[in-house]
Amino acid sequence: MAGKRVVIVGAGFGGLYCARALKRADLRVTVVDRRNHHLFQPLLYQVATAALTAPDIAAPVRKILRSQRNAEVMLAEATGVDLVARKVLLAGGELDYDFLVIATGATHSYFGHDEWARFAPGLKTFDDAFEIRHRVLLAFEQAEIETDEARRKALTTFVIVGAGPTGVELAGALAEIARKTMARDFRNFDPARSRVLLLDATDRVLPAFPPQLSASAAKQLETLGVEVRTGARVTAIDEAGVQLGDERIDARTVIWAAGVQASPMGKALGAPTDRAGRVLVEPDLSVPGHPDVFVIGDLAAVKHRDGWVPGVAPAAIQMGWHTARNIRRRLKGDATVPFRYSEIANVATIGRRRGVADVKGLRFSGALAWLLWLVVHIFWLIGFRNRVSVLFDWMWAYVTWQRSARVILEETRTGRGTQVQ
Amino acid sequence: MAGKRVVIVGAGFGGLYCARALKRADLRVTVVDRRNHHLFQPLLYQVATAALTAPDIAAPVRKILRSQRNAEVMLAEATGVDLVARKVLLAGGELDYDFLVIATGATHSYFGHDEWARFAPGLKTFDDAFEIRHRVLLAFEQAEIETDEARRKALTTFVIVGAGPTGVELAGALAEIARKTMARDFRNFDPARSRVLLLDATDRVLPAFPPQLSASAAKQLETLGVEVRTGARVTAIDEAGVQLGDERIDARTVIWAAGVQASPMGKALGAPTDRAGRVLVEPDLSVPGHPDVFVIGDLAAVKHRDGWVPGVAPAAIQMGWHTARNIRRRLKGDATVPFRYSEIANVATIGRRRGVADVKGLRFSGALAWLLWLVVHIFWLIGFRNRVSVLFDWMWAYVTWQRSARVILEETRTGRGTQVQ
Repeated sequence: MAGKRVVIVGAGFGGLYCARALKRADLRVTVVDRRNHHLFQPLLYQVATAALTAPDIAAPVRKILRSQRNAEVMLAEATGVDLVARKVLLAGGELDYDFLVIATGATHSYFGHDEWARFAPGLKTFDDAFEIRHRVLLAFEQAEIETDEARRKALTTFVIVGAGPTGVELAGALAEIARKTMARDFRNFDPARSRVLLLDATDRVLPAFPPQLSASAAKQLETLGVEVRTGARVTAIDEAGVQLGDERIDARTVIWAAGVQASPMGKALGAPTDRAGRVLVEPDLSVPGHPDVFVIGDLAAVKHRDGWVPGVAPAAIQMGWHTARNIRRRLKGDATVPFRYSEIANVATIGRRRGVADVKGLRFSGALAWLLWLVVHIFWLIGFRNRVSVLFDWMWAYVTWQRSARVILEETRTGRGTQVQ
Repeated sequence: MAGKRVVIVGAGFGGLYCARALKRADLRVTVVDRRNHHLFQPLLYQVATAALTAPDIAAPVRKILRSQRNAEVMLAEATGVDLVARKVLLAGGELDYDFLVIATGATHSYFGHDEWARFAPGLKTFDDAFEIRHRVLLAFEQAEIETDEARRKALTTFVIVGAGPTGVELAGALAEIARKTMARDFRNFDPARSRVLLLDATDRVLPAFPPQLSASAAKQLETLGVEVRTGARVTAIDEAGVQLGDERIDARTVIWAAGVQASPMGKALGAPTDRAGRVLVEPDLSVPGHPDVFVIGDLAAVKHRDGWVPGVAPAAIQMGWHTARNIRRRLKGDATVPFRYSEIANVATIGRRRGVADVKGLRFSGALAWLLWLVVHIFWLIGFRNRVSVLFDWMWAYVTWQRSARVILEETRTGRGTQVQ
């Protein structure tokens, strides 16, 4: 290994694509992540709804970068940065850098109501996905034993807060689980009579899509049996349900798909941030006053038209590529160039053969959108094995309506102290 | 649902096959388990060594019994039995029975040294498998960061205590992981120089096999690079390694594959038990003095030739079938018949194209034994999807030497408080 050292913190889409784009540079590339795997986040909801297994959508970072001679991988937790001494601080060590790329992403935000987290888990990590899978499967199991009708109704009521892509996808999947997967499995109640509610405080679902696609998505959700409630502002969440102003919805399973908050690394930098904690970077994605430090992906607040670049995987990948290019330019003594986000396609799926897509203004919905989503996601999955395996799991699910990962794993119980029964 | 009620506690091989064999009986069959899935235990070591995913070897009990009209499934934890009132006691309820089948299995025993459990996890549940997978993958990650040579050596030393089938299979898999899977993934040390030690207090590996196959297995293990140490009695285990009398082996990963202990339900019955807590049943597998209560599988101590029926899946299945038959006889007013164990085949695998097999006295080893093991296990897996999926994972691993489940899942960290450095 040679010359200067780039430290990349975070092996999500931004960090990983940045590392790979530095393959031929005369640099030592060190990727630091507190997990050993890259997680294909856009499919995490499928793990939460028992359609895919965790290894289907994850690949060891070490394996992905195995053949990249100038790259090394460290499993470690970054706790901060010493911008003066040019060191990344780790739990139990530190790393010198010449260039630093911070790509630690975002987590969910409860808008100041962190006490809701206990009752309404969000969906950002495998831990979250297992927690949701556990709650959903367990709710059906408990409904089978429950003799009180009101309590059984609460057990089979599922509320999803937030109708962005994740919320819409979760709602569609839950409706399918209740109506198809579980259809013949219970003796004491009919799972098809479960309620799935999708709530959003704004006036439509999928607000990042054009209004006509939002309307189409809402209609497709309703066909699946999802109750879509827009303009619904959640004022309280507890273990027995949610409160919408004066209205009460009794539900034992509530899932949070609403707010996003940047990871604490942004604040740890001491750089200017927006309200969500995202770093207000320079046009070349560097931190103001620190031209060797770049912030990319969900952690970066970058202007785009009248708004901001959205927190989606393609944006993170483009920022990763762009930063690799700027670092190579700097090595040659050239000036950096500003980042420009290019929107390619915006696709969301709702259930089997349902979805909406916006490809450079070309809009479609239904089976074609779903197919596009399928192709894009399969194509995109890192690691050939995962692609084949996911395709197999999906085909299987498509033909049989079964979900292969319908397993309540013990460690979720042990870990969270949840007691069965 | 009709007539009398059979309650089956435990949905392992014994309980599940008993329930299925009662399909056409005029009975209400209630299967109670604290997990929602049947676990294919003979392949659990493959989850521990990252070759298979958890859903590959598990199927929801509810799904397996879906089409059996007279069966219902309850996710609940049985805490005891009231033999006089004929009730199974649950955490939060109770169940009346006319016939009771207890099939709650066994867990590992540390021979009175329960304090070793922290340092040397055993392998009985998914929780155990994830813990072992976590420790093994993390040890390699930490070795990559470690600069002290002695500490790195301890990190890359793996000790397995107990050379029964599980111990042998784990040792073979760990040797392959170190020498093949991880071969090109690290920059600061050579994983192929890892040590894998297999210890047993007796004078040979696989003591349940004929001596010539034990010798063959030991030789095959040594070819793979495993250090086989028989006559090695562990006197202490701590976080830094194991003690064999005066000898010290520094190892950060120790796995326990030695003793077996029956589940506490045996003692809760108040019936006579052997030293391992197994119930000394009547020849028809009923509890002495309680002809309506049967104990089957690993929890039952049943005479066989000069010894006991071994705690293996085929024995549990045969007991499940036999008990179903006896219950049907009782319904007709006939007397029960004694159980007789029929040994079919004894197969153990050691690594790819390595193994030993004893089929009714016909003994072979190497590739043929391995192939037999593969066919038997694939054929035997409950649920068609699992069969296809496992076959795919195996073929993939065979061709690429990769292990598809090389993911350190977060909840293992959260659950056990292990900290990733």
